[in-house]
Amino acid sequence: MAVTRQPLDQEQLERLDAWWRAANYLTVGQIYLKDNPLLERPLELDDIKPRLLGHWGTSPGLNLIYVHANRLIKAYDLDALYLTGPGHGGPALLANVWLENSYTEHFPEVTRDRTGMRRLFRQFSTPGGIPSHVSVPTPGSIHEGGELGYVLTHAYGAVFDNPDLIAIAVVGDGEAETGPLEGSWKGNKFVNPTRDGAVLPILHLNGYKIAGPTVLGREDDERLTKYFEGHGYSPRFVEGDDPMAVHQQMAEVLEQAVVDILEIRQRARSEGFDTRPEWPMIVLRTPKGWTGPSEVDGKQVEGTFRSHQVPLSGLRDHPEHLRQLEEWLKSYRPEELFGQQGQPVAELLELAPEGNRRMGSNPHANGGTLREPLVLRDWRSYTLKIDDANRARERHESTRVLGGMLRDVYLDNPHSFRLFCPDETNSNRLGAVFEASDRCLVSTIYDYDDYVSHQGRVMEVLSEHNCHGWLEGYVLTGRHGIFATYEAFATIIDSMAIQHAKWLEHACDVPWRAPIPSLNYLLTSTCWRNDHNGFSHQGPGFIDSLISKRPEVVRIYLPPDANCLLSVADHCLNSVNYLNAIVIDKQPQMQYLNAEEASAHCAAGASIWAWAGNEVEGEEPDIVMACAGDIPTQETLAAIDLLLQHLPELKIRMVNVVDLMMLPPSDRHPHGASQEKFNALFTTSKPVLFTFHGYPGVVHQLLHGRASTERFHVRGYQEEGTTTTPFDMVVLNRISRIHLCLDVLRYVPDRLEKASAFIGYLENLLDEHQRYTREHFDDLPEITEWRWSGGKG
Amino acid sequence: MAVTRQPLDQEQLERLDAWWRAANYLTVGQIYLKDNPLLERPLELDDIKPRLLGHWGTSPGLNLIYVHANRLIKAYDLDALYLTGPGHGGPALLANVWLENSYTEHFPEVTRDRTGMRRLFRQFSTPGGIPSHVSVPTPGSIHEGGELGYVLTHAYGAVFDNPDLIAIAVVGDGEAETGPLEGSWKGNKFVNPTRDGAVLPILHLNGYKIAGPTVLGREDDERLTKYFEGHGYSPRFVEGDDPMAVHQQMAEVLEQAVVDILEIRQRARSEGFDTRPEWPMIVLRTPKGWTGPSEVDGKQVEGTFRSHQVPLSGLRDHPEHLRQLEEWLKSYRPEELFGQQGQPVAELLELAPEGNRRMGSNPHANGGTLREPLVLRDWRSYTLKIDDANRARERHESTRVLGGMLRDVYLDNPHSFRLFCPDETNSNRLGAVFEASDRCLVSTIYDYDDYVSHQGRVMEVLSEHNCHGWLEGYVLTGRHGIFATYEAFATIIDSMAIQHAKWLEHACDVPWRAPIPSLNYLLTSTCWRNDHNGFSHQGPGFIDSLISKRPEVVRIYLPPDANCLLSVADHCLNSVNYLNAIVIDKQPQMQYLNAEEASAHCAAGASIWAWAGNEVEGEEPDIVMACAGDIPTQETLAAIDLLLQHLPELKIRMVNVVDLMMLPPSDRHPHGASQEKFNALFTTSKPVLFTFHGYPGVVHQLLHGRASTERFHVRGYQEEGTTTTPFDMVVLNRISRIHLCLDVLRYVPDRLEKASAFIGYLENLLDEHQRYTREHFDDLPEITEWRWSGGKG
Repeated sequence: MAVTRQPLDQEQLERLDAWWRAANYLTVGQIYLKDNPLLERPLELDDIKPRLLGHWGTSPGLNLIYVHANRLIKAYDLDALYLTGPGHGGPALLANVWLENSYTEHFPEVTRDRTGMRRLFRQFSTPGGIPSHVSVPTPGSIHEGGELGYVLTHAYGAVFDNPDLIAIAVVGDGEAETGPLEGSWKGNKFVNPTRDGAVLPILHLNGYKIAGPTVLGREDDERLTKYFEGHGYSPRFVEGDDPMAVHQQMAEVLEQAVVDILEIRQRARSEGFDTRPEWPMIVLRTPKGWTGPSEVDGKQVEGTFRSHQVPLSGLRDHPEHLRQLEEWLKSYRPEELFGQQGQPVAELLELAPEGNRRMGSNPHANGGTLREPLVLRDWRSYTLKIDDANRARERHESTRVLGGMLRDVYLDNPHSFRLFCPDETNSNRLGAVFEASDRCLVSTIYDYDDYVSHQGRVMEVLSEHNCHGWLEGYVLTGRHGIFATYEAFATIIDSMAIQHAKWLEHACDVPWRAPIPSLNYLLTSTCWRNDHNGFSHQGPGFIDSLISKRPEVVRIYLPPDANCLLSVADHCLNSVNYLNAIVIDKQPQMQYLNAEEASAHCAAGASIWAWAGNEVEGEEPDIVMACAGDIPTQETLAAIDLLLQHLPELKIRMVNVVDLMMLPPSDRHPHGASQEKFNALFTTSKPVLFTFHGYPGVVHQLLHGRASTERFHVRGYQEEGTTTTPFDMVVLNRISRIHLCLDVLRYVPDRLEKASAFIGYLENLLDEHQRYTREHFDDLPEITEWRWSGGKG
Repeated sequence: MAVTRQPLDQEQLERLDAWWRAANYLTVGQIYLKDNPLLERPLELDDIKPRLLGHWGTSPGLNLIYVHANRLIKAYDLDALYLTGPGHGGPALLANVWLENSYTEHFPEVTRDRTGMRRLFRQFSTPGGIPSHVSVPTPGSIHEGGELGYVLTHAYGAVFDNPDLIAIAVVGDGEAETGPLEGSWKGNKFVNPTRDGAVLPILHLNGYKIAGPTVLGREDDERLTKYFEGHGYSPRFVEGDDPMAVHQQMAEVLEQAVVDILEIRQRARSEGFDTRPEWPMIVLRTPKGWTGPSEVDGKQVEGTFRSHQVPLSGLRDHPEHLRQLEEWLKSYRPEELFGQQGQPVAELLELAPEGNRRMGSNPHANGGTLREPLVLRDWRSYTLKIDDANRARERHESTRVLGGMLRDVYLDNPHSFRLFCPDETNSNRLGAVFEASDRCLVSTIYDYDDYVSHQGRVMEVLSEHNCHGWLEGYVLTGRHGIFATYEAFATIIDSMAIQHAKWLEHACDVPWRAPIPSLNYLLTSTCWRNDHNGFSHQGPGFIDSLISKRPEVVRIYLPPDANCLLSVADHCLNSVNYLNAIVIDKQPQMQYLNAEEASAHCAAGASIWAWAGNEVEGEEPDIVMACAGDIPTQETLAAIDLLLQHLPELKIRMVNVVDLMMLPPSDRHPHGASQEKFNALFTTSKPVLFTFHGYPGVVHQLLHGRASTERFHVRGYQEEGTTTTPFDMVVLNRISRIHLCLDVLRYVPDRLEKASAFIGYLENLLDEHQRYTREHFDDLPEITEWRWSGGKG
């Protein structure tokens, strides 16, 4: 259906423009004013904030989109979210949600009148006030936008399985230069109109970044058309600098886009669809800092990079700037917009949608309010059967066991759970999920494709940025998911994880933000078992990036086996407001604990594995051999096996750590073990040989604050690797059973005397390993065939 | 000039095909064979490696491109590099560089005959052998390709200021899904044909990733044409599965692309250019695993994801697979390709270019051999004049001082130095470089643009991925540069830094790799002074990602002021094979050291600032107040100032750390201070209050291994922040002068008694700060006006 040309009559046009002027006025007010909000007396320096902070350049465009979106929300009863890519345009969004009263409903002290307006202005970008960017305390936002590049991934994540939602995603042309943003246009290849909502991207081309021109801002419409058609969109243009003409264009183009979306949706739901729809997108080309000062001190400002932040910044030294600011504010004719008490006039109020239809009050933007717990079957029903006969004697692919559980999570939660993975679901042994759902791709499908369909809900795209951003959008709107990735390539999204952590850290302080499902990471194909892919695939550094974030939001788990993995995964899928990182390999690995033991172990965070040690009750052991991670656990047990055979008089305690955050003191992390518990595990004075999955520095920094940490000798990945055998990886990094035995002898020196034969044996074994792997391209049979001998020497 | 249709005569066609078959044969041989390399006897299980590792799927396409590139290198005397985006296609590249003899010249033990071929096969992906990916020891490579997404950025970086170079960059269609890759097509907007070389991207569409279809692989040619025209390229297609037909097509299309590049180049250099050239790019659509087993066990393999890695992997359990492998190998007719001694036949040898024109021997791919030291003026000529009168009493923008130096580096090194920055050069106060060079943009330029031109060599693009990747390509080919970025957004390229570190770590072990210029980071707009941008911009985590890398390659500097920054920058710009991170803020900050002092201080890595303390010669102080970073230095000095005024009997030593890597023991890092030096700075028993720029865990982990570390009390950024004042940032994170004084009193408890009035003063100051900032939106005047009082109480 084609919408009317020039759809606005004069009254509508003037009303839309009035809202726009009001929003622009309120934006400028926030940047500059600490008093005299309605300009009821001549503007004085005392009315001006001492530090002028904020971003004007993008704001008029953001305001324009907001008011036009409101018109269509009312006309078509749309369920719409507004995602602000140029998140530094914070004052624009605040202006609009204040006008529509969403702000006052979330923050009653900021009333919708003169007093509230003064407060709105004063609090912006001031100490004890609110941030300059669209952010956690901005009603209606699920997107911070401080680190640019993720607005489309968040938008697509929000609309998956939200069939009636439209996410209006404003992309700044600076942001559009980032890799993550360019890589996120392809979200349209993963949207199925029969069950997903729609994203309406609006590229706001205002031509400049902080100082330089934007790349897309210098391309002509013909090339932009190809660019977006090449991406599979149907681009439409709104361009100009005459407000009234732009309003008419925008009204028509935006309405046409909405109508097209509704038609795509309606047609697909009634008739199905064969070929991917060409979703509309809009290019909005308007001047940077539009309606702001045209020139300042003889230099062009409007339409250039000079309006990026604060166009008039020298008020104290240039009295004429103060006059220019006053003229600028008055150019919006505030007297027409706000009543005697500073309240928006009735004509404005009528433009706002009502209740939850207001974009500042849309419940999807406070996803915790919509969150329903996942339906999870008892994780014990998936566990491997482990008893003393097969304990530490059988290998299974731990993640394949988890796959069975995830299959049922898909089955039982057909609209509220998704797995996100860069094309590695099968490789990561999670392929059982394909019994419940295909991979999603809304493109041509061939009959020899493997579990790929338009209906699929397993999200595979070779872009860690998309996977992470989609999952963020999904959990921020109240649903659940897991991002599974090769461990080394989690660092690709370090900064996204950091920004999501910051969102959660901030959300803890905003009472009306209901808790959202945790963002869960499954890091597999770990450094130890990327022996086949080589050095680039060997990197456990994601843990290092997480641990510095606030303890309220970060959890790191290193389940040693499949049953612990199930217990941990169940816990994580039930949790809220965390980043949960679970680290475990996908290859067949030794299994240790039965369901009950795994449950107790994971609940404790760390425990003594009595069956693996030989300490005498009531006496302290000679050494504590601690470990965290599946490969470290295996090497530690194999080392104990050797030690007990060769030096049975040595008394060893084995401690396994599954919850890394039990290490710090309890005043530094909520999971930190009490001093009593910590001592009960690690003693107070005995040497501890701690074999860790990742970089040793992680353990060193977590242990800080514990007593006598110098007795903790931490081994871990030390940046050695190549394409080699699995055992050679632990040899290269000196965490092999052989090295651990030698280390034990180092730290329990009074045994050294009797141990010379044992040392000879170990050194010989190392030689044999070298020779065998170099000649046979494989690990020594006695290594690959190692099974727990039964302990106790 | 249009090249001939069907340019190959029958003999050329057969020869090209023969090379291709030889390369394919050698690729398969590397994946499978440990013996019987020429199939001189029937293939047996004993000839097969026990672990089959390698990636076949992409290799035939890589081989095809290689031989066709060779033809044109010879025909047009091209200076060409080959960059392998699908870097897991390692065996393909190895096959070609062995055929052209580059391999044997780098590794004489791998001769170009039967013995060498056997060795080539055996060493591939085996312990003690070579990695499965294109990697550091692959002659001709500057690109690892294990972490996908960066091939175009590396290629563009390589051709900047290399006017005669052509970088043939193969982009896998899996890799093409990543954000960084999609964001890197825009490199063509920064190439100036009058002074830069050319990148020829070849998108290899084989349709599948590990398991699923690729997004671009499912788009038709019409849409792909729009996509690449939208990106500003002139796309051409080569498609098919009949080798001879594809050879003819490829020969024509590749030649046309080369001719077009040479014409663009020639025209621009003789006539100049107004509009950006539409650089050619090629879409090569051939089957995945082309010429490999068509079906295995009844399932289609060629042309599907099943040929991604090892198409026949069950040789031990399926005797028919062994026969299928033998047929596959024989299908390349090795007897036509290799002579009696296993050497490539003469007809093949003639196809290879000679000497440095061979892509495996191109000197740009071993950039250290081309490296010339930067021309650097004496850094002391840029220093601020500091003496006792203005020491710690004047504020200057430290990075602006560096800007003056960088301007001259541009002037003195017009072809071998570039600054890379995401649109923040001015914001970061480095704008003086614009006196020497504009920003580069090869698009329409407006007269009101600020220092933007086609000729500019300051590289600004709002993509940290492009900035980092371009700089990598630039230094890997022997030139010099700096990546300057907001500190928080350095974590966007965490994984790229990690991969470059791995490259350097590996390169240390490859003798023929000549040292390349260091990759220098300037991290500015730091967490402490993003008070105006808020929480998303406050993140010092890049340091955490770097410190776990091998000590041979990582250096981290925290110059406290401008003169130290100059000294450090000079050192870094002269260095090779490091990642140097320099962290310093851009706002006006206090200055401390004159040129001589800065020189000595930076050379020492850390030293006692005697002028700031009051210890008595020959006696140990009561406490050591240490600091690293400009803001920590300021707060530490301001705290000392307060302490000396209020508690003059307290004896304080002030230690400043500029080289963070002096902290670890000397056996853990080459910059680690000797135990003697460490003790001379920090004493052996006195409390140390260490105020650090970043997360405290960094210092805790670096100190591990030092004696009695529990006396080090580290303060730093603890993930608190918002939009507020600078001083409020240090208050929120408890490193303010007030908090440091209170901490000193905590750790020197015997002074506490006399200190109650002082504590009252401090608490009052904190209250005053709260009140003043909340009311005046600014810092207390006595904070902003603080100057060093002269010390000594």
